[in-house]
Amino acid sequence: MEPTTRALYNGSLVFLDELMVPVNDRAYMFGDAIYEVLRVYRKKPFLLAHHMARLQKSLDAIMIRGVCDLSADISSIIAANNIEEGMVYVQVSRGAAPRNHSFYKLDLTPNILIYAKPFFVHPTLREAEEGITAITLDDMRWARCDIKTVNLLPNCLAQSKAQTLGVDDALLIRDGYLTEGTSSNVFVVKDNVIKTPPLSHHILPGIRRAFLIEALQASGHQVLQDSISKESLYSADEVFITSTIKEAISVVAIDGKSIGHGIGKLATLARKLIVDAAVL
Amino acid sequence: MEPTTRALYNGSLVFLDELMVPVNDRAYMFGDAIYEVLRVYRKKPFLLAHHMARLQKSLDAIMIRGVCDLSADISSIIAANNIEEGMVYVQVSRGAAPRNHSFYKLDLTPNILIYAKPFFVHPTLREAEEGITAITLDDMRWARCDIKTVNLLPNCLAQSKAQTLGVDDALLIRDGYLTEGTSSNVFVVKDNVIKTPPLSHHILPGIRRAFLIEALQASGHQVLQDSISKESLYSADEVFITSTIKEAISVVAIDGKSIGHGIGKLATLARKLIVDAAVL
Repeated sequence: MEPTTRALYNGSLVFLDELMVPVNDRAYMFGDAIYEVLRVYRKKPFLLAHHMARLQKSLDAIMIRGVCDLSADISSIIAANNIEEGMVYVQVSRGAAPRNHSFYKLDLTPNILIYAKPFFVHPTLREAEEGITAITLDDMRWARCDIKTVNLLPNCLAQSKAQTLGVDDALLIRDGYLTEGTSSNVFVVKDNVIKTPPLSHHILPGIRRAFLIEALQASGHQVLQDSISKESLYSADEVFITSTIKEAISVVAIDGKSIGHGIGKLATLARKLIVDAAVL
Repeated sequence: MEPTTRALYNGSLVFLDELMVPVNDRAYMFGDAIYEVLRVYRKKPFLLAHHMARLQKSLDAIMIRGVCDLSADISSIIAANNIEEGMVYVQVSRGAAPRNHSFYKLDLTPNILIYAKPFFVHPTLREAEEGITAITLDDMRWARCDIKTVNLLPNCLAQSKAQTLGVDDALLIRDGYLTEGTSSNVFVVKDNVIKTPPLSHHILPGIRRAFLIEALQASGHQVLQDSISKESLYSADEVFITSTIKEAISVVAIDGKSIGHGIGKLATLARKLIVDAAVL
């Protein structure tokens, strides 16, 4: 297959499938990197400023310095890949250096990867139409899940385990309470009240999450940021996950128990609110 | 500077400084890889079988399949670099694939990196002679620190923070109790009783740790695997850290408080027990 996906690596245009990076990049040996995923609707990155602000927060949190605004590069890689509908991936690593845990006093140049891929069919169309099934798993992640780093092995293990057990994804439980999906935030509906876990060091401040809290409230719904026990999931009228790529997807069964009655009304509304705002 | 360190990458001999790896290696985007560090004494890797057994345990724990025994490659990279005294680094990633959290049903070929570096002066000679200073920090790591993965950002952040604050390293505290150093196990001595935290999901089963528990007992000392509160560190007669590279190093101050009286006798003994066994 011909390589097709174009990437910017430190500003140079390359094919993603041919791109090689230094083995001693700290992303490779320590996961010492942060990332963002953006959604492109009608050639435009949706909520670009929000993603750029969160990227900068991640950089600040792990003290990677000297990364300029990447908005122009993001626009240029969308154009280079001629993307109508699709996604952009941005990763910034601290840079390459002989292996040593500490980066104190190291004067490194960050390595910046940006690529974009088109969606010819939306990758979560089936999930949107049928909903997904999930299991609950213990949240094994570190204490700063609010920073969007590539230390993602616990997330990978949880999602793989769920699929090995015959369901689509996992909902993560810490100390008896829901935190997130493996790469999504979670909303739970009961008696017309919509709840999502409050921001803390244990969840990512999802950009779709923030957008939806506001948009659902503006459309007349009560949305609370409140803790959600594992048990309360089973009796919910509706559960849905949100993410940049997935938008909003109904969770129709958890731990083998059906939730509500198939695809939820509020998941459908949430998806519509996102798409409507994106294609305005 | 001429590249000098030779590496084996999937069996091919290359220069480490020139080695490039695929950007979509899962180590790069998820930290989806495990590793080992071995110490070479007099041309021989010390406790090779123990390191190979732990490597296999790590592979099994995160379900990376199809990696054969690497002992012969380790010997060959030691010879290729003509190492008398030094170290070997081994990293196995799950392989390269388009970015997707789940590895369920992916049939990937692991990427195997092995390199070796000589020590002309032992890298921790100063630390062995003078001891190190440390601060205590909250252990922010995930719930499976017993698996030796490259999801090491919390370790990197903790060690860098310690050095930014003017000390050498950090001792990690979870729920009020000592777990580990940032890349070492910890032993604490009080009234001639030596304690080290018991094995659990929160600490790495260090190979020097296991060696020393046995060797110190064989030399007539009482060694307990028991929980160690943060407060009890300050009143210890001696605290030392152990690792493959560092062997055993006295911690002479913690959080600005002096521990015991300079370099500890048992740290010195521990170091001697390791080196004596290694050069037998």
